[in-house]
Amino acid sequence: MGLVVQKYGGSSVADAEGIKRVAKRIVETKKAGHQVVVVVSAMGDTTDELIDLAEQVSPIPTGRELDMLLTSGERISMALLAMAIKKLGHEALSFTGSQAGVITDAVHNKARIIDVTPGRIQEAVDKGAIAIVAGFQGVSQDSKDITTLGRGGSDTTAVALAVALEAEVCEIYTDVDGVFTADPRVVKKARKIDRIPYEDMLELATSGSKVLLHRCVEYARRYNMPIHVRSSFSGHSGTWVGNISEGAEGMEHAIISGVAHDVSEAKITVVGVPDKPGEAAAIFRAIADAEINIDMVVQNVSAAATGLTDISFTLPKTDGHRAMELLTKAQPSIGFESLRYDDQVGKISLVGAGMRSHPGVTATFFEALSDSGVNIELISTSEIRISVVTREDVVKDAVGAVHTAFGLDSDSDEAVVYGGTGR
Amino acid sequence: MGLVVQKYGGSSVADAEGIKRVAKRIVETKKAGHQVVVVVSAMGDTTDELIDLAEQVSPIPTGRELDMLLTSGERISMALLAMAIKKLGHEALSFTGSQAGVITDAVHNKARIIDVTPGRIQEAVDKGAIAIVAGFQGVSQDSKDITTLGRGGSDTTAVALAVALEAEVCEIYTDVDGVFTADPRVVKKARKIDRIPYEDMLELATSGSKVLLHRCVEYARRYNMPIHVRSSFSGHSGTWVGNISEGAEGMEHAIISGVAHDVSEAKITVVGVPDKPGEAAAIFRAIADAEINIDMVVQNVSAAATGLTDISFTLPKTDGHRAMELLTKAQPSIGFESLRYDDQVGKISLVGAGMRSHPGVTATFFEALSDSGVNIELISTSEIRISVVTREDVVKDAVGAVHTAFGLDSDSDEAVVYGGTGR
Repeated sequence: MGLVVQKYGGSSVADAEGIKRVAKRIVETKKAGHQVVVVVSAMGDTTDELIDLAEQVSPIPTGRELDMLLTSGERISMALLAMAIKKLGHEALSFTGSQAGVITDAVHNKARIIDVTPGRIQEAVDKGAIAIVAGFQGVSQDSKDITTLGRGGSDTTAVALAVALEAEVCEIYTDVDGVFTADPRVVKKARKIDRIPYEDMLELATSGSKVLLHRCVEYARRYNMPIHVRSSFSGHSGTWVGNISEGAEGMEHAIISGVAHDVSEAKITVVGVPDKPGEAAAIFRAIADAEINIDMVVQNVSAAATGLTDISFTLPKTDGHRAMELLTKAQPSIGFESLRYDDQVGKISLVGAGMRSHPGVTATFFEALSDSGVNIELISTSEIRISVVTREDVVKDAVGAVHTAFGLDSDSDEAVVYGGTGR
Repeated sequence: MGLVVQKYGGSSVADAEGIKRVAKRIVETKKAGHQVVVVVSAMGDTTDELIDLAEQVSPIPTGRELDMLLTSGERISMALLAMAIKKLGHEALSFTGSQAGVITDAVHNKARIIDVTPGRIQEAVDKGAIAIVAGFQGVSQDSKDITTLGRGGSDTTAVALAVALEAEVCEIYTDVDGVFTADPRVVKKARKIDRIPYEDMLELATSGSKVLLHRCVEYARRYNMPIHVRSSFSGHSGTWVGNISEGAEGMEHAIISGVAHDVSEAKITVVGVPDKPGEAAAIFRAIADAEINIDMVVQNVSAAATGLTDISFTLPKTDGHRAMELLTKAQPSIGFESLRYDDQVGKISLVGAGMRSHPGVTATFFEALSDSGVNIELISTSEIRISVVTREDVVKDAVGAVHTAFGLDSDSDEAVVYGGTGR
């Protein structure tokens, strides 16, 4: 049996009991005959507490020092985990990101992995030890400074190590049973997805599903590393994310993977933009220069009489205030009429690689929304996703209605018939 | 003006306010024209809290992992301190022990410094930055594992860096104004010592004074690095520890530096030891093999009639139980009669290089003890120190009496006249 990389998040190692439970599970995997490399996050709320401390000392802490501070969190959890494993009679050695060979660029707080040279890890597992590696952190190639990969970076560490060590699988342990067809807190009948292709997982991740981050899935897809998302609290099999070709899987592969929703975005409408080349570019350049990521963009057909058009886009609520300031400042040079800001919006996305080859998905989607009285404000689509923006307060009902309409409810055996003219 | 190394202990950086206060003081030193290198301990009780966590996970945590765990403490304080300094408009960079070039042996939890190669620190200060270095930690020469220097190791880090960087002075900041002629919590009239020779400081450190550890003073003496112990809460000058020759200082140099006491020890008496070669060796070998440090040792003259003698020694109370177990186990092979254990003892020590050349010190010391009704159980002396063991409950009174007898009280102008036959 080969090498397995397991990643445990902060909620799985929130206290001494959690650490002991995780240690037991790691030892079981080792006893089953695998070589085991473990990537661990900081305990529970440690990272947030450290950020609070930093803010007390300095309102805008600098990148290098913030990284030095935050990386202490994993140092604690990984050392404790190694101790707990040793207590169970197995050899365990903990390694910082730097010691594990996680080489990054020098962009503090959101460094990107450039290379992974896990010589010390390979040596440790070859000697029969379990290697525990700090997630979320690395060392910059040139300056040898400590870096962090940004929030959720531990998953990326795990996948990157799995790729570098040619692991069989990268197991991501979390506090839920896997990836669901919708958020189970919102849709009671949401089902756990057993298998999902990388591309669907990528779309779900960008559409509000929080189980895996886009970046980690993208890394896994590039190197074709299977990810198994599962619960650290139960022994059940979770969700396998991998290279599942539609043809090969036949009936097993669902047309629709799931319904995601996201209420963390706001909508800005730029009213009365002169309908001539360069106007939209000027607007989005102002936003992009401030490193604000925008999501959906919609431009209305311009009214022939006035030669003016409206441009709407969505962006994280947390960036809303700054974006409005920037646009207000740019108003004289761009020459639009006014701005409208709306943070009472929600986004609902239907995701599935299967929709490519199944006509009628869009129609069913809009019918379900319409039947539950949901008014659509913006629409955006990719080849395997349809997203709409609507009022925030109808999002939960809308997600449930769509989930039911596509036969995703867990106790439903009905097949969905797609009719109409395709999407 | 030259380079200054400043060390701040855990109580000086216990919270965000403390860190900001320390940052201000560091910046003042920088503004005065010095290059500044700062060594910092973990915040407040962080180290104890981490040890608690480790014990919850594993009753006997292993050295390597415990070091990985504990070193997260300084990582937090040093990063926060660097942020606080930057907020005051000065460049600051934090460095781990490893990054600062603190090379140690591989004895985890109590590593010894082998070499200091502070290239990155020198580079940082040469560029005008303030360098913040994690105390208490290093990296092992061969295995490149993280090590810690043991409790109080931060002071040693500071002195070692000061030596390697050829600093003017190593300033040790603490929560008291300096080294006192006695513990100010016990002797109200204790005076701050302005200047004290290395050797007196060494004797005080081993006799119960907690301001500086023996190891750090020893390191400073070897390389003749002056230490300035002072308060991080006030601007007052503290105590200078240095190479103060008796002759050169003339009247300035006190005969007696101070009175130390220690109630952390227990006394074990081995009763009825056959008075023949090798018996004492067998007893202390049993203790030494368990890495228990003993302090004073006294053997009575053997009674001619029985050919038996008693051997008493003191050792840390925390090792008392283990030592008694070891000796009980060794009783059959060594062949003594019985063991007596007493943890209600206290030690009082009078320290001063001046006593070498001033007869009568011992007599005055014993008279002071006798006048306050203190019964002496054990006596031990070095060239510049006299120590006695007595009942724990009379220690405070005894220290006060001795302090007064030698004219150390702060409002006393009386000179002490030494008579008699010397010691």
